[in-house]
Amino acid sequence: MTDECKPVLNTGLRGVTVASTRISDVNGKEGKLIYRGYLVKDLAEKACFEEVIFLLLFEKMPNSKELESFKKQIASERMLPSRLIDALKTRPADSLPMDILQAGVSMLAHHDPDTRIDGSRDASLRMGIKLIAKLPVLLAAWERIRKGKEPVAPSLELGQAANFLYMISGSVPDDELTGFFDACLTLHAEHSFNASTFSARGVASTRAHMYASIAAAIGSLSGALHGGANTRVMMMLKKIGSIDAIEDYINNELETGGKIMGLGHAVYQIDDPRALILAPMSKKMGERAGETKWYEISKALEQKAKAAFKKHKNMDIFVNVDFYSASLYYSMGIDMDMFTPLFAISRIAGWTAHVIEEQFADAAHKPMLYRPASDYIGDYCGPDECTLSPIEERG
Amino acid sequence: MTDECKPVLNTGLRGVTVASTRISDVNGKEGKLIYRGYLVKDLAEKACFEEVIFLLLFEKMPNSKELESFKKQIASERMLPSRLIDALKTRPADSLPMDILQAGVSMLAHHDPDTRIDGSRDASLRMGIKLIAKLPVLLAAWERIRKGKEPVAPSLELGQAANFLYMISGSVPDDELTGFFDACLTLHAEHSFNASTFSARGVASTRAHMYASIAAAIGSLSGALHGGANTRVMMMLKKIGSIDAIEDYINNELETGGKIMGLGHAVYQIDDPRALILAPMSKKMGERAGETKWYEISKALEQKAKAAFKKHKNMDIFVNVDFYSASLYYSMGIDMDMFTPLFAISRIAGWTAHVIEEQFADAAHKPMLYRPASDYIGDYCGPDECTLSPIEERG
Repeated sequence: MTDECKPVLNTGLRGVTVASTRISDVNGKEGKLIYRGYLVKDLAEKACFEEVIFLLLFEKMPNSKELESFKKQIASERMLPSRLIDALKTRPADSLPMDILQAGVSMLAHHDPDTRIDGSRDASLRMGIKLIAKLPVLLAAWERIRKGKEPVAPSLELGQAANFLYMISGSVPDDELTGFFDACLTLHAEHSFNASTFSARGVASTRAHMYASIAAAIGSLSGALHGGANTRVMMMLKKIGSIDAIEDYINNELETGGKIMGLGHAVYQIDDPRALILAPMSKKMGERAGETKWYEISKALEQKAKAAFKKHKNMDIFVNVDFYSASLYYSMGIDMDMFTPLFAISRIAGWTAHVIEEQFADAAHKPMLYRPASDYIGDYCGPDECTLSPIEERG
Repeated sequence: MTDECKPVLNTGLRGVTVASTRISDVNGKEGKLIYRGYLVKDLAEKACFEEVIFLLLFEKMPNSKELESFKKQIASERMLPSRLIDALKTRPADSLPMDILQAGVSMLAHHDPDTRIDGSRDASLRMGIKLIAKLPVLLAAWERIRKGKEPVAPSLELGQAANFLYMISGSVPDDELTGFFDACLTLHAEHSFNASTFSARGVASTRAHMYASIAAAIGSLSGALHGGANTRVMMMLKKIGSIDAIEDYINNELETGGKIMGLGHAVYQIDDPRALILAPMSKKMGERAGETKWYEISKALEQKAKAAFKKHKNMDIFVNVDFYSASLYYSMGIDMDMFTPLFAISRIAGWTAHVIEEQFADAAHKPMLYRPASDYIGDYCGPDECTLSPIEERG
C-alpha cells in the first residue's frame, strides 16, 4: 500500500502524517493553536473550560442554554461509586498520583454498563462526559485519602475549575483564582497528536472502549519526556533558588550540553501561545501568594537563557507551555507531584474527543487499526534461523 | 526530517516501518514466525514457556542451570500484595476480565518501589519479570473472586502453564494438558508491532514505567479488532452449531459481504504457522473432553470456506492463530470471556521485551518519543479562524 514510505527509523514518526483530524491544529511557525476552528488564546480569555469541552466534543460553541444544560450534566456525573472509594483506600499512600489515575480510570470502567453495550458513538460520548466529570473528583479524592483525610464530596453547583480547587482544599476559591485555573484547564485541553493522544487513539483503534483508551493516555502522560515536564521546570527553579544564581546555572548547562527545562518544543518555532497567557497569571498569583520569587526567576531565566543560547550557540529558543505553568501551580499551593495529574484533568477533554474521532469519523476519514511494520535486525545466527539445541547441550 | 513520507492517511500505518527491533520477525510470505532467531514452531514443540520468556528477555536460550534459576525467580514473584486482593474484592462481579487486568496491572505499580527509583534497565527488567509472574495470578484470582470463591494461592513449584490451570481449577493438571497450555503460551508470546505491542511501546517511549506501558497494551488487546478475535471465533462456532449448517453459514457470509472469523490475517499470506500447531491440539483436547464437535466444525469450516472463497471470490484465505485456539480453550473448559485474558498472560512476555527495547536499545537504534503529525481538516469557518462571539450572541 505504501511501500515507498520509509520514515527515518526510530525517530518516533516525526514528520509522518498518520491521520486526518478535525479536532485541532498546531501551527508552530505562527505560534497558533486552534481547537476546532477557534484560537486557544481567544478561548482562554473569553470562554470557560466547559465551553471548551463542549466545543471539543460537539464541534460548536454552546449557546447559553446549551452551556447551562451541559454544566448540569457534567455536575450530575461527578459522584464516584462508593466501591471505587473503597478501592482507593486499599492503595499505598506513596503511590504516584498518575499511577492512581490510571488505575482509577480502568476501575471506573467496571462500574459503567456503557462499556458492555452497543459500541455506539452515543455510548462513547456518554463515557467521555462521565470521565471528564469524574477524573478531577478521582484525583481530589486521592489527594485527600493519601493524606489520611476523607474525600470531600464534589459540589453539584460549581464549575470544573472551582469544584476541583474546592475538593482539594475544602473551601470554595474566589473568582480570580477560579479564573486562572479555568484558563489553565483550557490551555492544556488539547494539542493534536502528541504522545498521550496518540496512545489513546492507538488503543481506541482496536475498538477498545473509552476507559481502556484513556488509561493508556494517562500512562503515556506519566512519562518524564511528556507530562512530567512542568514538574521538572519547578525542580529546576528550586535548584536555581535565586535570580543571582541564574547565570551560573545557564553557563553550566551550556557547557555540559544540558538544556533549560521549559524552553524549546518539538513543534513551536516561536514562543508557545499558551506560555504568553500563563506568564502574567504566574506573576499575579505570586503576588497573591506573597512570594514573587518563582515568577521573577522564571522571567529572568527566560530572558537570559534566550540571550545566552543565541550568543553561544546561535540558537533561538522559545518558552513552552510548561515554563510558566510550573510557577503558577506552585503559587497556587499545589503539590509538585500533582502538576502532571492537573494536566490530565484538562487534557481529558481532548483525549475523549480523539477517541470518538478515531472510532466514529465519517467513512472517508475513519482510521484503521494501527499496525505499523518494523525492521527486524536480530542477527543472532547470522542471516539464518537459529537451530534449537536440546537444553543439556546449551552453553 | 521525513518530509517525503506521506503514508496513506488513516490506514493505521500499514506498510510504514517505524522502528528497528531485535525481538521478532513475522515472515508472512513463508509463514514463518521467529523469536530472536528461533522458529516459533521449534520453540512450541521443544521448549517450555519459561525458556521462551528467558529468550525474549535475555536474548539467548537458557541452559539447564539458568532455566532452573529463572523458574525459581518467577515462582518467587507470584504472590500478590494482600491489599491488591482487597482492591479486587471491591470490584463488581460482572467487570470485564480485561478491564480487571488493566486496573490490576496499574495497581501493581503502586506496590513496587522499582517504579520510583532510577529508571534503569535493571529496574525495568525486574518489573517485567514481576509482571510476567503476577499477571496470571491476578487473572486466576479474579476468576475465583468473581465467582464468590477465595483465590487459590499460587504454587511455588509449578511452571507458568500448570500453575495457572491449578489456580483456576484448584487441582494440578496432568502433563498432557499442561503441555498443550504451555505450547499455547509460547505461540501467543510475541508477534512484533501489532496494535497492543505498539501501544506498549508508545507509552514506554515517554519513559513511563513498565506497568503504565503494559496497562496500555492490555487496553489495546481488549479491543474487538485485536484480542477479541478468538472469542468471536467461538461465538461463530456456537452459532453454526453443527457440520450440516456450515455451508449455509458460509454462503450467507459470502452474500452479505461478511467474513469468516479466524480466517485471514493482515500479515500472513499462507496458513499461520501457529494455527498448524494448534489444530491437532484442539482435536486431541476435544477427544479428552468427550466432545469433538467444535474441532470437527472448525476443520470442516476451514476446508469449505477456503474452497468457497476460492470459487466465488477467487480469493485464497488462510487460518490465523485465533481459529483453532478458540475450540482448544473451549475444550479445556475455559470460559469464553477468559480467552483474551489468556492471550495477555502469554503476550506479556513479548510486551515486556518490547518496553525494554523501546527504552534501552543501543544508541544507534533507540527510538524517540512517538509524536506523529496529523492533517487538520477542520473546516469550521472555511480557511480562516473562527471569530469567537459572546455567548449571548450564539445561535
